[in-house]
Amino acid sequence: MIASSQKHWTGDVADLLRVDEGFVLADVDTRATPGYEKDKVHGAEDLKSGAHQLDEYQERLYARSRVDATDAAVLLVLQAMDSAGKGGIIRHVVGSVDPQGVAVAAFKKPTPEELEHDFLWRVERRLPESGIIGVFDRSHYEDVLIGRVRRLAPAEEIERRYGAINEFERRVVDSGTRVVKVMLHISPDEQKSRLMERLERPDKHWKYNPGDVDERELWPSYMAAYQTMFERTSTEYAPWHVVPADRKWYARLAVQHLLLEALEDIDPHWPAATFDVEAEKKRLAAS
Amino acid sequence: MIASSQKHWTGDVADLLRVDEGFVLADVDTRATPGYEKDKVHGAEDLKSGAHQLDEYQERLYARSRVDATDAAVLLVLQAMDSAGKGGIIRHVVGSVDPQGVAVAAFKKPTPEELEHDFLWRVERRLPESGIIGVFDRSHYEDVLIGRVRRLAPAEEIERRYGAINEFERRVVDSGTRVVKVMLHISPDEQKSRLMERLERPDKHWKYNPGDVDERELWPSYMAAYQTMFERTSTEYAPWHVVPADRKWYARLAVQHLLLEALEDIDPHWPAATFDVEAEKKRLAAS
Repeated sequence: MIASSQKHWTGDVADLLRVDEGFVLADVDTRATPGYEKDKVHGAEDLKSGAHQLDEYQERLYARSRVDATDAAVLLVLQAMDSAGKGGIIRHVVGSVDPQGVAVAAFKKPTPEELEHDFLWRVERRLPESGIIGVFDRSHYEDVLIGRVRRLAPAEEIERRYGAINEFERRVVDSGTRVVKVMLHISPDEQKSRLMERLERPDKHWKYNPGDVDERELWPSYMAAYQTMFERTSTEYAPWHVVPADRKWYARLAVQHLLLEALEDIDPHWPAATFDVEAEKKRLAAS
Repeated sequence: MIASSQKHWTGDVADLLRVDEGFVLADVDTRATPGYEKDKVHGAEDLKSGAHQLDEYQERLYARSRVDATDAAVLLVLQAMDSAGKGGIIRHVVGSVDPQGVAVAAFKKPTPEELEHDFLWRVERRLPESGIIGVFDRSHYEDVLIGRVRRLAPAEEIERRYGAINEFERRVVDSGTRVVKVMLHISPDEQKSRLMERLERPDKHWKYNPGDVDERELWPSYMAAYQTMFERTSTEYAPWHVVPADRKWYARLAVQHLLLEALEDIDPHWPAATFDVEAEKKRLAAS
């Protein structure tokens, strides 16, 4: 399915980016622009035209959740290596939606309290309410990515988590939330140039962490952990999408499209009035 | 103080809107545009120029909270009669800030669990973290507004709350959060025409509630409750501002200005690097 407002795609983007049986991360070209044949300038224009649509869909979703008491929501899960552009997605894609309709949860290193609980405890608490687009900036998947690479938990525990995640997401989807899972995929070279830019600009120094260079050494281990994660948790009800992200403009356009599709799939229409409109006009006029 | 980027004001807006000793709500002209002599078209342009500034200030605030571990945050408290434009402020003013830097909390009728606790319990839990602009869409002030008008609590309890609020806000301010309290003030006639518009547009029906007309009957009681609230809770550390809101464009410009001022008062600069920039460039280049 292609969202109806999205005439600029030359293929079914979701299909092209979805992680299906036989997917191999190493085969993905991080500079590619699957389904899109125009350039950066057009990409920015097309992003702008989708921005209004996304905002309106979310407002309709919210309106319906108030009146029809539906439980529909959308959850965007963002995973990526450092500097791949999660922040840019939130700012430039999610930023087009009314702040009242968005809830961003950034998951950092777990606190001692969080570590006292199962790894899904802190995630459950940040699920979006009905009518809302929730964004996870990192997520429960950290627990099978850095958790695996840095051996933060025993191997059996990591193994257990894949199944626990699938059961958890099954329940979330069944409760009415569309789960859109995205890995932004950049090359090590692209990361190097982005980190270098952070070092060159004093207003970007705060985004740089010397630990980022250490993590780069573990790039192959991370890619292996992602590959396993895809194989174990890309399900029919909550599939993964790998979005080539060396070109930021493409990644934004693609993620916007995935969100638009999720919202079209819910098909939120403006809810009908639950009162007699003409009678209310009279009451109001007399007040 | 006038925020340095804000050359379009002809007076000290915060001063003009602040609730000081001797303030009388009934004397406020809801169609006025204190401190601004240009029209709606210019107002929209000036709002746009402030939008970028607000976004940058918030990013600097966030950056500093990560590196310098400061506790600075901003909390915008919005109170108003129905249809006065709280939603428009959030969408058009707060919406210019990166969603990662914003946390909106909408306080509705308390849940049974919330009623089991003191009225400030649910509010405390939604205070913004450092680096963030928090927005309260309604707030603890409902408990001395509708709480007083509809007699939802005994008179002594309402009395107690004013003092409790002041102590609470004193603590919030002392912990590093600038509290910007705004009442958007419209006339009953303006409300009538806005509610009528909601009835006339099917895509706005969901925003209409027949109870809104009943509340209109209580307008004088609400204004009296606001007047008392101002007298009891407009403090030096967390003053109230009454923003004439019959002209939406003015209200947005004024609230944007109050936020810019709060951020300039914190003066968040980009934090200095906590590492050796040149050494990191070399490490990164070699990685």
